[in-house]
Amino acid sequence: MHTRHEIGWRGFGSDNQSGVHPKVFDAMARANLGHVGGYGADPYTAALADVVAQHFGADALGFPVFSGTGSNVVALSAFAGRWQSVICAECAHIVTDEGASPEQSAGLKLIQVPAPSGKMSPQDVAEAISRLRTIHQSAPAVLSISQSTELGTLYRLDELRVLVELAHAHGLAVHLDGARLPNAAAALGLSMGALSTELGIDVVSLGGTKNGLMFGEVVVVADSAAAPLVARARKGLAQLGSKQRFAAAQLIELYGTALWSELASHANAQAAELAAMLTRFDSVRLAYPVEANAVFLHAPAAVGAALAEGFGCQTFVVPERVVRVMCSWDTTSDDVCAVVDVVAKALAG
Amino acid sequence: MHTRHEIGWRGFGSDNQSGVHPKVFDAMARANLGHVGGYGADPYTAALADVVAQHFGADALGFPVFSGTGSNVVALSAFAGRWQSVICAECAHIVTDEGASPEQSAGLKLIQVPAPSGKMSPQDVAEAISRLRTIHQSAPAVLSISQSTELGTLYRLDELRVLVELAHAHGLAVHLDGARLPNAAAALGLSMGALSTELGIDVVSLGGTKNGLMFGEVVVVADSAAAPLVARARKGLAQLGSKQRFAAAQLIELYGTALWSELASHANAQAAELAAMLTRFDSVRLAYPVEANAVFLHAPAAVGAALAEGFGCQTFVVPERVVRVMCSWDTTSDDVCAVVDVVAKALAG
Amino acid sequence: MHTRHEIGWRGFGSDNQSGVHPKVFDAMARANLGHVGGYGADPYTAALADVVAQHFGADALGFPVFSGTGSNVVALSAFAGRWQSVICAECAHIVTDEGASPEQSAGLKLIQVPAPSGKMSPQDVAEAISRLRTIHQSAPAVLSISQSTELGTLYRLDELRVLVELAHAHGLAVHLDGARLPNAAAALGLSMGALSTELGIDVVSLGGTKNGLMFGEVVVVADSAAAPLVARARKGLAQLGSKQRFAAAQLIELYGTALWSELASHANAQAAELAAMLTRFDSVRLAYPVEANAVFLHAPAAVGAALAEGFGCQTFVVPERVVRVMCSWDTTSDDVCAVVDVVAKALAG
Amino acid sequence: MHTRHEIGWRGFGSDNQSGVHPKVFDAMARANLGHVGGYGADPYTAALADVVAQHFGADALGFPVFSGTGSNVVALSAFAGRWQSVICAECAHIVTDEGASPEQSAGLKLIQVPAPSGKMSPQDVAEAISRLRTIHQSAPAVLSISQSTELGTLYRLDELRVLVELAHAHGLAVHLDGARLPNAAAALGLSMGALSTELGIDVVSLGGTKNGLMFGEVVVVADSAAAPLVARARKGLAQLGSKQRFAAAQLIELYGTALWSELASHANAQAAELAAMLTRFDSVRLAYPVEANAVFLHAPAAVGAALAEGFGCQTFVVPERVVRVMCSWDTTSDDVCAVVDVVAKALAG
Repeated sequence: MHTRHEIGWRGFGSDNQSGVHPKVFDAMARANLGHVGGYGADPYTAALADVVAQHFGADALGFPVFSGTGSNVVALSAFAGRWQSVICAECAHIVTDEGASPEQSAGLKLIQVPAPSGKMSPQDVAEAISRLRTIHQSAPAVLSISQSTELGTLYRLDELRVLVELAHAHGLAVHLDGARLPNAAAALGLSMGALSTELGIDVVSLGGTKNGLMFGEVVVVADSAAAPLVARARKGLAQLGSKQRFAAAQLIELYGTALWSELASHANAQAAELAAMLTRFDSVRLAYPVEANAVFLHAPAAVGAALAEGFGCQTFVVPERVVRVMCSWDTTSDDVCAVVDVVAKALAG
Repeated sequence: MHTRHEIGWRGFGSDNQSGVHPKVFDAMARANLGHVGGYGADPYTAALADVVAQHFGADALGFPVFSGTGSNVVALSAFAGRWQSVICAECAHIVTDEGASPEQSAGLKLIQVPAPSGKMSPQDVAEAISRLRTIHQSAPAVLSISQSTELGTLYRLDELRVLVELAHAHGLAVHLDGARLPNAAAALGLSMGALSTELGIDVVSLGGTKNGLMFGEVVVVADSAAAPLVARARKGLAQLGSKQRFAAAQLIELYGTALWSELASHANAQAAELAAMLTRFDSVRLAYPVEANAVFLHAPAAVGAALAEGFGCQTFVVPERVVRVMCSWDTTSDDVCAVVDVVAKALAG
Repeated sequence: MHTRHEIGWRGFGSDNQSGVHPKVFDAMARANLGHVGGYGADPYTAALADVVAQHFGADALGFPVFSGTGSNVVALSAFAGRWQSVICAECAHIVTDEGASPEQSAGLKLIQVPAPSGKMSPQDVAEAISRLRTIHQSAPAVLSISQSTELGTLYRLDELRVLVELAHAHGLAVHLDGARLPNAAAALGLSMGALSTELGIDVVSLGGTKNGLMFGEVVVVADSAAAPLVARARKGLAQLGSKQRFAAAQLIELYGTALWSELASHANAQAAELAAMLTRFDSVRLAYPVEANAVFLHAPAAVGAALAEGFGCQTFVVPERVVRVMCSWDTTSDDVCAVVDVVAKALAG
Repeated sequence: MHTRHEIGWRGFGSDNQSGVHPKVFDAMARANLGHVGGYGADPYTAALADVVAQHFGADALGFPVFSGTGSNVVALSAFAGRWQSVICAECAHIVTDEGASPEQSAGLKLIQVPAPSGKMSPQDVAEAISRLRTIHQSAPAVLSISQSTELGTLYRLDELRVLVELAHAHGLAVHLDGARLPNAAAALGLSMGALSTELGIDVVSLGGTKNGLMFGEVVVVADSAAAPLVARARKGLAQLGSKQRFAAAQLIELYGTALWSELASHANAQAAELAAMLTRFDSVRLAYPVEANAVFLHAPAAVGAALAEGFGCQTFVVPERVVRVMCSWDTTSDDVCAVVDVVAKALAG
């Protein structure tokens, strides 16, 4: 069957336009031997438990799921009771890019906090909590933080600590949307645990698909006491895979070695290079600091159009018009130069 | 990493204990080249559309999803409006094995109809509809039929036709839970379209995982007018994969060739062989006719225990105590003989 | 404005076709003085707390709500977490007469247990629990019992005790759908507390509307620790009235005096009288024992038609065809005789 | 029973701290005669249909419900399909004061639009729509407008017309949260129909409780074709009262006469008087124009505290700290003077 796969095309629209890292692919092939138990009753899932514990602590447990949306909604619906709500940045993925999944599939109300440059301030979080003071407002159960943020920026360790302490002081659990936690950890030179469970974060949606996997994310709970809630939510949200060995084998390959860090560092470095080259153009400037693998640009409309046509890039209005150029684990320096060339041509008009 | 994968173990607990067919694995490897668009904007998803049209008609559209539960809930929530309900067999997978997913993640009320041997009668369906006569009952929107059924039996073509006509006469859409539709089509010697869209069935949850894929099911709508509803439901239920090319490539390999039929026929044949051999034991009898790839047994408790220990088989109470032995696409005659040996020993015990 | 209110018409279709008891109406009038706090911050709601404590124990708390469906769903959604389920009789009001409210508005999965004569047996409840054994089934959180039952029958005290102990032994909370608990208590000569909280029942949906109020039910929790959950659920289900003083004033008049018992006893006695008179007809027989205020009849179709036309009675199929004749707090002996006359005429043809 | 009802206390915390207008109470008393059909099968509900048609057009239909939250969620869930969303002001009641009801009980995602002074601009609505451009965002189904707004301001007729046309041009239905529509109509000197259905608004949540009723709001659909959806949603949200005659009788008394306009005009006039008197104090200024019956003040903290203690007033942060003083249908000039006195004392304090 001819599928018109344009082998040479390179995408900068998202870090999911890339494929699967060869080592990860091989790990799946090795796992494809004969029969094992379904739904996680398999040796790969068992081995993944050790990997999760190494990163997130001895009492942490990980639950593989299919997708990032699934990971977030499973985590949040396990930690927020019925009729409760989740505080998050107004630009959080759960607000802007997960359809009505949090609301329809789990009944979650999202309380939105301003987040210039993608980051919530403790003051704004505190004010949001203070507004939810009577029975007429939903009781907040979880503070959800994205790291790296939707705008490609990073919370510093002390910034995270303040938010976690604030949330806990008000009885809220803390969720980390870590679809790109590897990028954050690599950029900050810290372990993923240091940025999450060691700070007291209660549940992490740890990504994999955007960092070289075919599919597979993990909901990590810091305290195994929450396991039954997550297990039910995962099943109820149709995120429990029957042939889970293949998700687990991928995750072991990524997180049981240094691969996660290498791939994330590479993507980050390419974004830095790209940002450096693009900002040499007078009419192009960065919308936000480039701290992970995303580059957000203010640029003439012709640039946005050219990047969309050439590399599948998207334009957002948050609140200003910005173009997102996202680097991936396999973005090459040639790819970066190709982007720069296209921008140059668009500017030359 | 040592994962204690017992290579020689063979499972009969479910047809998801097997792995991925080599041709399917190769198809994924071929798809793993460079970059393509995410979320279905890729050539493999485009090619899958043709495959779906060949099976289910020119106006049919297919939406790959991750899991069987996801497939069912996406399909049902697209065809049932808010506050409406779904009529189904009391032993349907959506009733017994999908957690609270239909109810919690999509608000669906399930109206249960008796189903001895897994099949609903038109009389019972008509009576269920007739009971939902006032505003105090939920208005039924969909009749959901499983083929093959949860008890391994099959509706004949004329039985399906009567149910579809009955449902349509009352304004209900018809959903087919086709997690094992290939097994049904192979057993009946009919095409999958003849058993579904050609009869007027509106939406099919077509399985893949249980028939040799790593993951991947397809929600097929007969009329593309329903596409926006399904697309929203798929996103909302976290069933839209970013690297969808890999699901599509698998599905193309399975359904774009005769592989689906070969694998399903094989599993069916192994079940027939197993049933024939097991019923030679005086104290073992079939609970339901073996018409697809499942064998349900009435047998002494020791048999159930031995099959659980040896092959991961489960015991159900529906309403009588039965043991399920499920054959897979790669079940060998040696595997079948091993089951018979274990049963013989348990009976001799 | 002419509203064609046929003053003389008498209904036996439901115990909500009657109006408001004069004492209850007067209580509302007395409460209608000037201003008080909204949403329960009023002296009537405060006084209701004492009334609830007298009936259900010092640690019990009551939450007025608008409707019976609201009362049940508030109670259940407070005691069942996300992705959990409720075990109940297959003929329970929450299954058959509350639209898709439990499923859509609170995500509750209802696990149905056979209930000949309206009552669940401990064996059937135990079996239902035992089937919910893996992550693939929803975890049951609550056993919901209706007293009096939907079929007008009663659980004896020891029958209730066994069910409560069974549920608690499996970690389930127990909910009592007490829309007609006054009728049950009056019939059994027991206090409402003896039939509920004193047995360990955790939450009661106590009716009022069917026993002489204009509107108003109360969700009673035995342990005030559950109060925040119920308060949130009541708000979230739009069951928190702003001018709650009027619900509270009615409930105080009904339950702060012996009125509840007098009205319920009267309705029960009228049902007993009606049953005695109707069973003198050879072709009329009782479908279930008449133990509260409902009479269910097996009778020729002409009788059902005549009772529907004359008194608004309904015919059900559960599973046999039965006609329900429901007595109310203000049903008179003349009313009862009128029913008997209509039946006699229908039989005479 | 002593209920410590402080007869002389006057509340300005909300327009639901007042009681029931005597004419409305009498109407309920007249409706309390003998038996009528339940759930709206009564002559009062039938008569209400004419009243609704007179205000909102011959094809309009009204559905009485219990509460304002219920009214909004019933209306929205009837017009928004599963997985769809509602665009509304960031200060809308459905966002800030209805718990998690829209999200949990109906799965609605609320897309928030800036609303300085309570009103959305067409530009901001258009931008919100434009952001919901892919499957990753929820598809908007309804634009919800509050009139009067949560901040006591009013949309002019032409402002409403532009919003309605904008919504319709994008395929969205328009909902009016008209909990205080009588106040808006009275203030603008327009009929309620002119402000809603005559402009093409599809569904109105028409208030009653805040304008002299004991309870009772009406969901009005402009086109009766939407009736089945609303009827199901009302049942599913537990907003269908069994003794509906009493809600209908109240609504007929209010809206079948000029009473609605008289009471709303009175409340508006008292608010205007109060605003005029309070702004004579140097340190008190209006936060928003006083256009209906709400007065929002910027004032020293001592004033907020004194108004809270004396009259149950609330302080909000939206985004600045403001104190709300709400006039009711029975607010007297003495009451207004009492407020002014308390403010004077607090300022002198």
